[in-house]
Amino acid sequence: MKKTKVGIINVTGYVGVELARLIYQHPNVELSSVTGRSAARQKLSKVFPQLSVFDLTIEEELGDVELVFSALPHKESAKECVPLIKKSIKVIDCSADFRLNNPQDYPNWYGFTHPAPELLKEAVFGLPELHQSKIASARLVANPGCYPTGAILAMAPSVKAGLVEPDIIIDSKSGISGAGRTLTLSTHFSEVNEDVSAYALEGHRHLPEITQELNLLSPKQKCLITFTPHLIPMTRGILSTCYATPLSGKLAGGKKGVEELRQLYSDFYKDKPFIRIANEPPHTKQTWGSNFCIIYPTISPQSGKIIVISCIDNLVKGAAGQAIQNMNLMLGIPETAGLQSLPVYP
Amino acid sequence: MKKTKVGIINVTGYVGVELARLIYQHPNVELSSVTGRSAARQKLSKVFPQLSVFDLTIEEELGDVELVFSALPHKESAKECVPLIKKSIKVIDCSADFRLNNPQDYPNWYGFTHPAPELLKEAVFGLPELHQSKIASARLVANPGCYPTGAILAMAPSVKAGLVEPDIIIDSKSGISGAGRTLTLSTHFSEVNEDVSAYALEGHRHLPEITQELNLLSPKQKCLITFTPHLIPMTRGILSTCYATPLSGKLAGGKKGVEELRQLYSDFYKDKPFIRIANEPPHTKQTWGSNFCIIYPTISPQSGKIIVISCIDNLVKGAAGQAIQNMNLMLGIPETAGLQSLPVYP
Amino acid sequence: MKKTKVGIINVTGYVGVELARLIYQHPNVELSSVTGRSAARQKLSKVFPQLSVFDLTIEEELGDVELVFSALPHKESAKECVPLIKKSIKVIDCSADFRLNNPQDYPNWYGFTHPAPELLKEAVFGLPELHQSKIASARLVANPGCYPTGAILAMAPSVKAGLVEPDIIIDSKSGISGAGRTLTLSTHFSEVNEDVSAYALEGHRHLPEITQELNLLSPKQKCLITFTPHLIPMTRGILSTCYATPLSGKLAGGKKGVEELRQLYSDFYKDKPFIRIANEPPHTKQTWGSNFCIIYPTISPQSGKIIVISCIDNLVKGAAGQAIQNMNLMLGIPETAGLQSLPVYP
Amino acid sequence: MKKTKVGIINVTGYVGVELARLIYQHPNVELSSVTGRSAARQKLSKVFPQLSVFDLTIEEELGDVELVFSALPHKESAKECVPLIKKSIKVIDCSADFRLNNPQDYPNWYGFTHPAPELLKEAVFGLPELHQSKIASARLVANPGCYPTGAILAMAPSVKAGLVEPDIIIDSKSGISGAGRTLTLSTHFSEVNEDVSAYALEGHRHLPEITQELNLLSPKQKCLITFTPHLIPMTRGILSTCYATPLSGKLAGGKKGVEELRQLYSDFYKDKPFIRIANEPPHTKQTWGSNFCIIYPTISPQSGKIIVISCIDNLVKGAAGQAIQNMNLMLGIPETAGLQSLPVYP
Repeated sequence: MKKTKVGIINVTGYVGVELARLIYQHPNVELSSVTGRSAARQKLSKVFPQLSVFDLTIEEELGDVELVFSALPHKESAKECVPLIKKSIKVIDCSADFRLNNPQDYPNWYGFTHPAPELLKEAVFGLPELHQSKIASARLVANPGCYPTGAILAMAPSVKAGLVEPDIIIDSKSGISGAGRTLTLSTHFSEVNEDVSAYALEGHRHLPEITQELNLLSPKQKCLITFTPHLIPMTRGILSTCYATPLSGKLAGGKKGVEELRQLYSDFYKDKPFIRIANEPPHTKQTWGSNFCIIYPTISPQSGKIIVISCIDNLVKGAAGQAIQNMNLMLGIPETAGLQSLPVYP
Repeated sequence: MKKTKVGIINVTGYVGVELARLIYQHPNVELSSVTGRSAARQKLSKVFPQLSVFDLTIEEELGDVELVFSALPHKESAKECVPLIKKSIKVIDCSADFRLNNPQDYPNWYGFTHPAPELLKEAVFGLPELHQSKIASARLVANPGCYPTGAILAMAPSVKAGLVEPDIIIDSKSGISGAGRTLTLSTHFSEVNEDVSAYALEGHRHLPEITQELNLLSPKQKCLITFTPHLIPMTRGILSTCYATPLSGKLAGGKKGVEELRQLYSDFYKDKPFIRIANEPPHTKQTWGSNFCIIYPTISPQSGKIIVISCIDNLVKGAAGQAIQNMNLMLGIPETAGLQSLPVYP
Repeated sequence: MKKTKVGIINVTGYVGVELARLIYQHPNVELSSVTGRSAARQKLSKVFPQLSVFDLTIEEELGDVELVFSALPHKESAKECVPLIKKSIKVIDCSADFRLNNPQDYPNWYGFTHPAPELLKEAVFGLPELHQSKIASARLVANPGCYPTGAILAMAPSVKAGLVEPDIIIDSKSGISGAGRTLTLSTHFSEVNEDVSAYALEGHRHLPEITQELNLLSPKQKCLITFTPHLIPMTRGILSTCYATPLSGKLAGGKKGVEELRQLYSDFYKDKPFIRIANEPPHTKQTWGSNFCIIYPTISPQSGKIIVISCIDNLVKGAAGQAIQNMNLMLGIPETAGLQSLPVYP
Repeated sequence: MKKTKVGIINVTGYVGVELARLIYQHPNVELSSVTGRSAARQKLSKVFPQLSVFDLTIEEELGDVELVFSALPHKESAKECVPLIKKSIKVIDCSADFRLNNPQDYPNWYGFTHPAPELLKEAVFGLPELHQSKIASARLVANPGCYPTGAILAMAPSVKAGLVEPDIIIDSKSGISGAGRTLTLSTHFSEVNEDVSAYALEGHRHLPEITQELNLLSPKQKCLITFTPHLIPMTRGILSTCYATPLSGKLAGGKKGVEELRQLYSDFYKDKPFIRIANEPPHTKQTWGSNFCIIYPTISPQSGKIIVISCIDNLVKGAAGQAIQNMNLMLGIPETAGLQSLPVYP
């Protein structure tokens, strides 16, 4: 069987490298071109010894491919993606540049005017568990942010069922790789090892994504999201702890209510191959290196609050793995192709 | 000046060792007796090379001391402390055995009937920022739990001022040393390294402590606390992110409200030597090895939620350091004696 | 194609779980039976949520399989393996019980008399880079220890070429997972995080393995190995730094000598799919989760010492991955089958 | 008692901050002036919240002080120190600029011509255990490097006693803070977490320091040092494993030889308050945050090699703590003043 040729724009960040790793183990596609400004004209295997199996040179211009992943930062990504879309190359953009439907969100949250607002209508938010059929027919997919992936998957069933008040708190704990490969004091080993901190309390850029998607599921009322991200001293993984107040009369009391809640989640994600509804509080390690999202919905016996915990590997289900999952849908191959390796434990 | 002789019951856990470290650098007291079941009759310096400066043998029975710290687990601690109190030895109990005023809480939360319920009335909850004068005259101080210390200090000013609705969410992230020195799979390095998880969602034992103390500050309404602890891969530190809804009309809108909130916190903790109100989201590393609690109160511009973050070193302000602070008050020496060393950075 | 049925004895340790993970992604074999004393009769997916894809119950007795991996501790493993071998089931023993040719080494190093010394002659030391053809025809393969794998692969080319004096120093740094899943103070998170220590200076059990295999390559003189293992605060990976003195006249001086040395290594490992000779000092992270062994041979310009550094993932090339590699050879399928996934980075 | 005024040049690196922390807890000196290019004119407490007790502004020019610590990088430090020495201010230079006696070593190892070679004769190598009296009368002390501190202290007794062959191997494992606060890919959290690597195999700049000092102790023969530093994923600590061959006839065989060796070390470091000769392999954690150096000398029963392990906190005994120890000697105050706090455990 002939493999589909795909490319990666900006392979030199963590998402780019992870895409290369996942493509290598994919039965249907082949990595045929990679670009990267900081390391142009070097061998990929020289810059990343982990990728020594590839005989590719990092190029300045993308070669001939059928589908491309952009792993560029926001603002720059849109610029590179727009001409590709016009050339009928399928695009999966891992930046934020096509995630938000409202063009005004770009100056508000990202500080730039969107260069192709007309494409925002066409772009599909690439969360396959919610938008599978649209993704399958899309030519431009906006791969969700890492925090939104975990948070939306955690709350979607409750919001869709109209189970909770609109006021939702999302407290997320992320490994450091989410901050990328760019050097900063807040990713300097001695600063973050043996440390935890919250950041972006004035409003994180992933907040409008979370709000947009949960609102789509909540026709009767707008969600009011409080989102607090934290950095913890590990490389990979995001655990989001989500708090919501159940609307009265929607769930039974006591353990029966918890069972109803869990049944709701199991039904919502029936046939979704990468979602696992857990019976016990999950660990991010249970997703390490894999495309799984583990979701644990429960109710506090003391306060009655609905608490939903989700765990993902931020670089797989939160980035490159989800991009591959989107690609599979766009190419009409099985959704799980190339994504079946198990979490690495311990 | 003659130093006061103090002892440690069960020196062989992390709180016990940390007490020994802090006593060693204290100008007014001297460690003259230590006990420990698992290592009785061994030299302290043999079991803990870090404590090689002490020429003490771990004994089965405590020697002659004026004040004792109990670092025993709950249930066992009460048994050992009761006879000491009756012998007029001042006691600072680092277990939960005298923290809860209501005797019924012990069977409910800890699974045993309290052996000395009459002492629960006398025992003082040893959070010096709230109960300074009572501690100064107490003969039995219940040293608070690590989570309650950070959580109560974070929310006390808001609750006392009647600023918030009773429904409060406390999302805490703790280093692994809080789980002690006892071997468990959940403290096994390869299990917790590169991992984060929530636990005790059915109700953590520190919840009634937090509720009791915040309710004392909130005469008009009972607080409804949702408390979720998490384990993160570091040794020391607890960061608690607390969420509450401001009652309408209590704070101005926008940045002015944030300023009012911060002023309220600064006023509340005026003259409290170990509390620092921060201008930026704090890091647990900024408290590492020290008795400081850093508190950052703010308001989410998007949701209007009050968010208060507190950071402590769980073994110092969350345990041994706070016990020394209590001892200082009980002995009538300066509150900061022996506790003035700075956080270790990085 | 029909898959070969294989089993794992004692799946409940880290090597057992890693074997299951690797078998799951293997195209030619299927995991059909697992045993484990500590969790018998439980679902595998219940004990290890990471393995939720398997619908297997942990049994007390192994089912019908063609090849079995034993992940039991030494002494116990031999007892279980001997009857299997007699039933003509191919056995790959991940313990030390068949690694040493000399029966006397077992009482000396492991404290027990070997129950089947006659099998020691038959058993093949399962380091495929050295014993490929013997492994292919073996019915009992002794999977090497983690430290010996890295150390022997690092020094084999120099020793075989008669390049160095017999006096060799091997200084190894290992992640904590090498100590297994059994709870000990030396694998308790708060003890080993932010810590490094050496251990077994009186003689580590892997020393006779290293000596045995290097001596086999060194007909003229016996090697005199000094081996010091260290524990460092990470989960996976072993880096071994090996020091030897070049015999005079064997290598050119200066950079030319380094080139000759590297050529020797490249030639020695030509066509070995899991060995990579590096141009720069390697990182264990470059092997994380993969079956690669990276080797960096060089010469100190100041002292003239030959220094060879090797990196492996202790649970893959140092245990389960190598066992799969051995299985591939024993079953006559490609050596790399099921082992082609790339290292996970970062 | 009036406190001596001291200053820190370049307080904004890890050594500078650690100096400030240690000075704060010192009974005899007071920090009265700090400089730092990257943060000039900012409040010290703003840049480092850990140092909030200081009411100091980071200045461009040092104020009036009696003794100064330079925490500048090499080459820049000499330039700033030379005029201070000429103004009769005592200087403790934490850079390499006055450590090497031979001016030619600077172009060879550091790539610059020394601006004040005449001062190299006067400068005292600030390892108090070897040069106590010279330090006491010095006006310029070169504070040793972190690796040399551990390595020299480990091998000095053996070399001084003429016990070993000149060929010595030093394999060191360091926490990441040794690489400083400057951002680099090799100190980026996601790169070094779960990783170990060797570096500077072509010759580390600390090698000539180690060689110089060991040669001073070895009049009959020059030492031939092989030194390999490694980075391991922790913030603080250096463990050095040193290997040497005993000269025949110098030590008894078996356990008696080990006892003789340990007695030699105990005698050599008698009355040295920061050296502890251990009975068991030491852990860097046993020195964490303290000025201790723990040394464990032994002999491999298999190979007969002398193995000496030393542990220090690289930022205390390996940098700032040793600088304070030097200051104490230079000011004629007790050697241990301000340095008596115990290691922080766990």
